[in-house]
Amino acid sequence: MIRFAIIGAGRIGQVHARAVAAHPEAELVLVYDAFEAPAKALAEAYGVRHTLDIDEVYGAGDVDAVIIGSPTAMHVEHILGSVRGGKRVMCEKPVALELDEATRCVDELGDEAGRVMLGFNRRFDPSFAEIHARVADGEIGQLQQLTVTSRDPQGPPAEYVAGSGGIFKDMTIHDFDTVRFFLGDIVEVSAFGTNADEAIKAAGDFDQAMIMLRNADGALATIVNSRTCSYGYDQRLEAFGSDGALSAENLTETSVRKASASQTQAQGPVLNFFLQRYEAAYSRELGVFIDAVNNDAEVSPNVVDGVEALRLAQAATQSAREGRTVRL
Amino acid sequence: MIRFAIIGAGRIGQVHARAVAAHPEAELVLVYDAFEAPAKALAEAYGVRHTLDIDEVYGAGDVDAVIIGSPTAMHVEHILGSVRGGKRVMCEKPVALELDEATRCVDELGDEAGRVMLGFNRRFDPSFAEIHARVADGEIGQLQQLTVTSRDPQGPPAEYVAGSGGIFKDMTIHDFDTVRFFLGDIVEVSAFGTNADEAIKAAGDFDQAMIMLRNADGALATIVNSRTCSYGYDQRLEAFGSDGALSAENLTETSVRKASASQTQAQGPVLNFFLQRYEAAYSRELGVFIDAVNNDAEVSPNVVDGVEALRLAQAATQSAREGRTVRL
Amino acid sequence: MIRFAIIGAGRIGQVHARAVAAHPEAELVLVYDAFEAPAKALAEAYGVRHTLDIDEVYGAGDVDAVIIGSPTAMHVEHILGSVRGGKRVMCEKPVALELDEATRCVDELGDEAGRVMLGFNRRFDPSFAEIHARVADGEIGQLQQLTVTSRDPQGPPAEYVAGSGGIFKDMTIHDFDTVRFFLGDIVEVSAFGTNADEAIKAAGDFDQAMIMLRNADGALATIVNSRTCSYGYDQRLEAFGSDGALSAENLTETSVRKASASQTQAQGPVLNFFLQRYEAAYSRELGVFIDAVNNDAEVSPNVVDGVEALRLAQAATQSAREGRTVRL
Amino acid sequence: MIRFAIIGAGRIGQVHARAVAAHPEAELVLVYDAFEAPAKALAEAYGVRHTLDIDEVYGAGDVDAVIIGSPTAMHVEHILGSVRGGKRVMCEKPVALELDEATRCVDELGDEAGRVMLGFNRRFDPSFAEIHARVADGEIGQLQQLTVTSRDPQGPPAEYVAGSGGIFKDMTIHDFDTVRFFLGDIVEVSAFGTNADEAIKAAGDFDQAMIMLRNADGALATIVNSRTCSYGYDQRLEAFGSDGALSAENLTETSVRKASASQTQAQGPVLNFFLQRYEAAYSRELGVFIDAVNNDAEVSPNVVDGVEALRLAQAATQSAREGRTVRL
Repeated sequence: MIRFAIIGAGRIGQVHARAVAAHPEAELVLVYDAFEAPAKALAEAYGVRHTLDIDEVYGAGDVDAVIIGSPTAMHVEHILGSVRGGKRVMCEKPVALELDEATRCVDELGDEAGRVMLGFNRRFDPSFAEIHARVADGEIGQLQQLTVTSRDPQGPPAEYVAGSGGIFKDMTIHDFDTVRFFLGDIVEVSAFGTNADEAIKAAGDFDQAMIMLRNADGALATIVNSRTCSYGYDQRLEAFGSDGALSAENLTETSVRKASASQTQAQGPVLNFFLQRYEAAYSRELGVFIDAVNNDAEVSPNVVDGVEALRLAQAATQSAREGRTVRL
Repeated sequence: MIRFAIIGAGRIGQVHARAVAAHPEAELVLVYDAFEAPAKALAEAYGVRHTLDIDEVYGAGDVDAVIIGSPTAMHVEHILGSVRGGKRVMCEKPVALELDEATRCVDELGDEAGRVMLGFNRRFDPSFAEIHARVADGEIGQLQQLTVTSRDPQGPPAEYVAGSGGIFKDMTIHDFDTVRFFLGDIVEVSAFGTNADEAIKAAGDFDQAMIMLRNADGALATIVNSRTCSYGYDQRLEAFGSDGALSAENLTETSVRKASASQTQAQGPVLNFFLQRYEAAYSRELGVFIDAVNNDAEVSPNVVDGVEALRLAQAATQSAREGRTVRL
Repeated sequence: MIRFAIIGAGRIGQVHARAVAAHPEAELVLVYDAFEAPAKALAEAYGVRHTLDIDEVYGAGDVDAVIIGSPTAMHVEHILGSVRGGKRVMCEKPVALELDEATRCVDELGDEAGRVMLGFNRRFDPSFAEIHARVADGEIGQLQQLTVTSRDPQGPPAEYVAGSGGIFKDMTIHDFDTVRFFLGDIVEVSAFGTNADEAIKAAGDFDQAMIMLRNADGALATIVNSRTCSYGYDQRLEAFGSDGALSAENLTETSVRKASASQTQAQGPVLNFFLQRYEAAYSRELGVFIDAVNNDAEVSPNVVDGVEALRLAQAATQSAREGRTVRL
Repeated sequence: MIRFAIIGAGRIGQVHARAVAAHPEAELVLVYDAFEAPAKALAEAYGVRHTLDIDEVYGAGDVDAVIIGSPTAMHVEHILGSVRGGKRVMCEKPVALELDEATRCVDELGDEAGRVMLGFNRRFDPSFAEIHARVADGEIGQLQQLTVTSRDPQGPPAEYVAGSGGIFKDMTIHDFDTVRFFLGDIVEVSAFGTNADEAIKAAGDFDQAMIMLRNADGALATIVNSRTCSYGYDQRLEAFGSDGALSAENLTETSVRKASASQTQAQGPVLNFFLQRYEAAYSRELGVFIDAVNNDAEVSPNVVDGVEALRLAQAATQSAREGRTVRL
């Protein structure tokens, strides 16, 4: 039985608390938040204790592993503190908003970096993971082109945008990790950002983007992003290889299709957002982390993958702002 | 070059005239109809001669083959006259409205029966034909269950119903032939007829039906029929075997799909009726007939298949009326 | 918190134990089985007590509700005993193998019959339930034709077949309930049974079947059954109405599709059997039962629905054996 | 009746000859080719005269319109000569291999430029055209993102590549026109080219590419290209707007789907190449041209669209070679 503390009692902390409670080998024992109300509410929901003192988490003798869902600005501090306290760590993406800070985190972690898991949950999505495994098995020959479509159902409020680090670090970072998951290290990035949303534009960020990437072997990827999507959370992937292609389609709540005078084959909207769409991914992600803790093993993706995704986000930002291809 | 006469200048005669004109080895030379206006109109459209005297067709020295699209009541007379006149014949379904008359036709034709083609055009539909070929190749193992869905977009006028011989002889007859195409001779039939349309009910016919059939090997089929279908001409087939299943889905005009706030994957309505849905089938059917004429060969389906489909229609009528399974 | 006893510690009892444990308002307290080993194993897995004495279940002061997953032959006794003991009951299908015995059960229950839930879990499948709700909302106009495809992945062993009551009572009974769920009471049944499996034939049962049904309003249904299906657990439904159609397609484990030189759009096999396919249905079913217990309310489907499905199974058996349509 | 000459008796000339022969308002009267054998063969197939003297085409008194399917290097000369000879012209893409030459053509044509049709046949594909019309009708709100997937089944021989002008001018030019069809004039282009095929790499060209484009309103497009595709001719389009998305899927020969132990929903490979995939498009294209000739009207797409697509091809070439975004 692995005993967990959760740092950050917000929406994502609640998701992880539920996953921990449901896992037969996991047990929640402690909740930390900088504010009393959410810490207490989450702790009481699971009948465990809470604290406002982060050092209590680092030093807790009855905590084996920590899940970090605090604001991004605190991630590096919480990672380093937890690791120094002898805890295994799973941290939400991104590692940090600035590449320098993320790099510093990895440097300070040293050999421990490979053991700090980063919450790129899409790697654990059953469909994406299946495609990855089948590509790795050589089922479509040499992987040549990757197409990632990733559109959120609704844009964030402008105030969120201001502190988000921009669309590439906040939203595309998941897709950058997906590209790295399939293509490995990237050597060239070109990005176009644009605005359909005036409020986000006024906040100085893009709300739509397209990005092209190339790896050292010359394989290409394209990412299509939008902060809004009328028909739900549009999350698709196509891997094209020399011997075939594998694609993951969107998910709908049921398999019902309708035919009427105006149309046929109509399905419902796609699952609305990440908690629904990636529910299975969150659960599998925790399972992989727990296995690694049980086996005292390194994890993938880890904080180094977080740094590399952030490097791509920074390159994309630069490319879109300066109108040029960025070489890494 | 095969020289054709067309008997019957109505809608289906026009379809065949167009197919003949488009075929590189076929040539239209003569049009017959009982009425001057349609005969003349069709003949003039293709710059050929017309006649109101059926014996002129039978005796024409410049006619090799005859396509019969006259009213059903005239089919047997037109088949026999044409064959006696030394012409090859392709006749629209059904052979006749009464099984006795159809059987008499086959008897009188004797050895010629296998050379008179019957217009069960669905056997030539690219999708249905592909399934048939793949089943015959053993791709799904032993064929065990056949599901035929066949719904017309709009019911016929009540006056048409009165002279149609009833839904089983007029509409289901195509599906009976499809079942025989896959399962061969049938030994048992059970049918339910019902009414959603009051006018057709008043005319003494069913407008919806379901039929089950069994062949001598115990393989089963079910047919689902409706005279109306809000989303177009619903024509599907599923062949289920010991090693898999093959199914033919409906056809839409384009491959366009729409996603919006209320739905995803919405395609257009299915092709509206038989001229559109079975356009390729009519063309392939004529090609098969022309090949048989060129090779002086028997054809399939032929008039004997027409008799057997009619036998099933009669059994289904009896089953539905008497509320019992009919053994053949 | 509702306290549950489970009668029958076999496969289905384990499914329910897991569902009870996972439900926030339910608690397992007691397990009964006629044999020590399974009773003990299941009880220990959840840290609760077990018994070999059925009267201990009936009389337990700390049990509010009972889930019956014992052999069919014991269902009526266990239902009556539990109800007399003041427990709410959810019982697996079928009520009994003989209609007489099922009817007797309802008679003895009297006013309590509407409060005994029967485990027709497919009514709670998200896709089937959505179609039912949308049909009830009038979205496709008047419901006219229902097509139910229901094929198991692998046939049962011959020894199971011997005591199963036959395919109609054992397997089709679910589909009969589905037809009743959509069409209400049935007035006419015609069934064809056949064999592809020699062992099942030798055991005196059919392994494939087709059934047609009609309700008092003239709406028709067809059921297509097979005990084996190479591509998994084939569970589909099509509701056809005057203004459109709604259909539920099969479920696959992921949304991955493959294109290669020989094919495109290839998905994985469908979910293999009922525990996977109807996982959400079992969970929703328990939720509905718990709501009814909390509200001291009647349930649907209840034991009367079980009797009516059994009546259809008996009629289908008679129809298939005697080769005639059976009127109810 | 419009009388046609065809310049160039190669593969594409044969396609157009067939389309002309099949059109009720068109008539082929003359075939030109620089070589005797193909000219004679094509002319004899349709029973018309042929010539090796291009001036005979320009001066022919019985020719109303000319279809140019000669090698690209001759397009401008053949366009100008035909127009000076008073003929209406439909010319295959691209106008020329060099932008300078294409621009010169438009300059010399002056007011006539809008009347010279350019063979961007995909605008007439029923699915793409339907999406364009529905977008224009506002069905998906503001068009924001366009995704074009365009992969040929088999790469060209290396000798062809050498004279093709490169993948962007030879293959992507169709997709550039598709982007302009939807987004209008483009202000920014970024392209990545790469090689999976060593022979094409040795010939100095790319065989795979990705391109991003932006119009003046900020709408974005991405094009995914490959010279080879194992599953056929991959031609898809997705238009994403503020209120929904419309997509065109690939076409297969039939609607047959297969389920087996290893997979479900498997369709056949997609139509293999442009003659099959765009058969309907070629026919509709000719119809639009004939209407324009009959009405003495301008056409779309015309030679100016050809120049603009070439400008994008040149910018993409530059972007891919120099590793930078090109502004237009």
